[in-house]
Amino acid sequence: MIRRTVFFVSDQTGVTAETLGHSLLTQFDGYEFDLVTLPFLDTLDKVDRALRQIEARAEEQKVAPVIFSTLVQVDLRQRFAPKQGLLIDFFDTYLPMLEAELATKSTHKAGQAHGLVDSMRYDQRMDAMNYALNNDDGSRVNDYSRADIILTGVSRSGKTPTCLYLALSYGVYAANYPLSESELESGQLPVALQEHKNKLYGLTIEAGRLQQIRRERRATGSYATMPQVSFEIRAAEAMFRRYKIPFIDTTRSSIEELASTLLLNTGIERRIRP
Amino acid sequence: MIRRTVFFVSDQTGVTAETLGHSLLTQFDGYEFDLVTLPFLDTLDKVDRALRQIEARAEEQKVAPVIFSTLVQVDLRQRFAPKQGLLIDFFDTYLPMLEAELATKSTHKAGQAHGLVDSMRYDQRMDAMNYALNNDDGSRVNDYSRADIILTGVSRSGKTPTCLYLALSYGVYAANYPLSESELESGQLPVALQEHKNKLYGLTIEAGRLQQIRRERRATGSYATMPQVSFEIRAAEAMFRRYKIPFIDTTRSSIEELASTLLLNTGIERRIRP
Repeated sequence: MIRRTVFFVSDQTGVTAETLGHSLLTQFDGYEFDLVTLPFLDTLDKVDRALRQIEARAEEQKVAPVIFSTLVQVDLRQRFAPKQGLLIDFFDTYLPMLEAELATKSTHKAGQAHGLVDSMRYDQRMDAMNYALNNDDGSRVNDYSRADIILTGVSRSGKTPTCLYLALSYGVYAANYPLSESELESGQLPVALQEHKNKLYGLTIEAGRLQQIRRERRATGSYATMPQVSFEIRAAEAMFRRYKIPFIDTTRSSIEELASTLLLNTGIERRIRP
Repeated sequence: MIRRTVFFVSDQTGVTAETLGHSLLTQFDGYEFDLVTLPFLDTLDKVDRALRQIEARAEEQKVAPVIFSTLVQVDLRQRFAPKQGLLIDFFDTYLPMLEAELATKSTHKAGQAHGLVDSMRYDQRMDAMNYALNNDDGSRVNDYSRADIILTGVSRSGKTPTCLYLALSYGVYAANYPLSESELESGQLPVALQEHKNKLYGLTIEAGRLQQIRRERRATGSYATMPQVSFEIRAAEAMFRRYKIPFIDTTRSSIEELASTLLLNTGIERRIRP
């Protein structure tokens, strides 16, 4: 493994620099990257200090760093000129072409992407998040009229993280309802769900993976045994088919993939974007 | 307001394209952007369909779209050549310079950034998230030895969303404990927190904003009255000062800003990145 230090430099949170840099670095095998985020570099002094930190690291490691920058304020960007290393400056690359295409100058204001710029947008996101928390795990079944989507499936099939991610990243109102053993045995969809059948989406998972997840949570009783886990999954999928509820397998998907797939398949609009 | 359609095109989730595009677009005032995400374009057929959709929209609107692409597989990228509009191809811009700097070819594999590539990384994130949920709102005080950070403050000061964001985006173990009225009256830090004083971080908020948030939640009783809200905030800040607990004001900060600030001020390492 070859080691390289990577800096994410920003006059704001650094989230954009981290996301973009991470996407690019994952395209390179055989490297181990030491990742350092330097956020809130919003004065010339802080920029100078960051430059010294980057240069010290380069000398210590005898190899030039890779630097992803989303500095947007003009004076800070001009000051940030590392003596060595590859500097990838996102705004510098793309703002000029967008300015030409949109025939207007950009504002070069910091904090536009992940700051508290639009408070309506922010309140909506908080509301979606509180909705997900209040409607997690079937804890409330009388507020489904506000839901954009209601996820259902067996315990530990991935419902809660997917709902919270949908709320945080997209401002989508996502509830979830775990199918209980008696509901699975009867094969009857609970009445509370039947009334909102068009919002339902099923999650399923492979038995081996579910057993592993449940073992880590509660090793005793039948909860994590293979017969129990297999029965629940079979019964849940049978119920999805019987009631024509679309469903997806979460076994090999990340939360981001599940969320994007659900939005694509249902056509639910994103209220905000990451 | 001038309207423009913006497409986010990806052979994977589209999260990177959305993040990149959103950051750039927020630098332009006076525009209203219609945002369309086209994820999972992982076959030539799907790419062709996306091209037709983009061209149809351009003809309908009589204005060329802006297109952010993170297509990474070579055949798909070559096929994706929209006849009009500004195409910002993220990997096309940056992979060649990174290949030169790292003196190695990139893999051009899809799904590396937001797919389920590294299952250890994924499990850690899930574990951090379950930790945040299980240790939310003071519901458990006997598992703080696993916490990286314990947020405390009055009810509705922003503790829960910050903890969940820290877990989801950074794999950080974040608990939170709301200060009760009797604790605020006594001015005594709860014993459960005293044992982990070095992990504590306080959140505070302006009274007017807290009143507004609480009113939306529960309008009755003293919970959302100005005397109550002011008393709680003053008592919480006095407690933070008395016990030398660092604290920040959440009133004008987004979740991303709070999370980045906490990581910066405490030096807690990110286990994963967004």
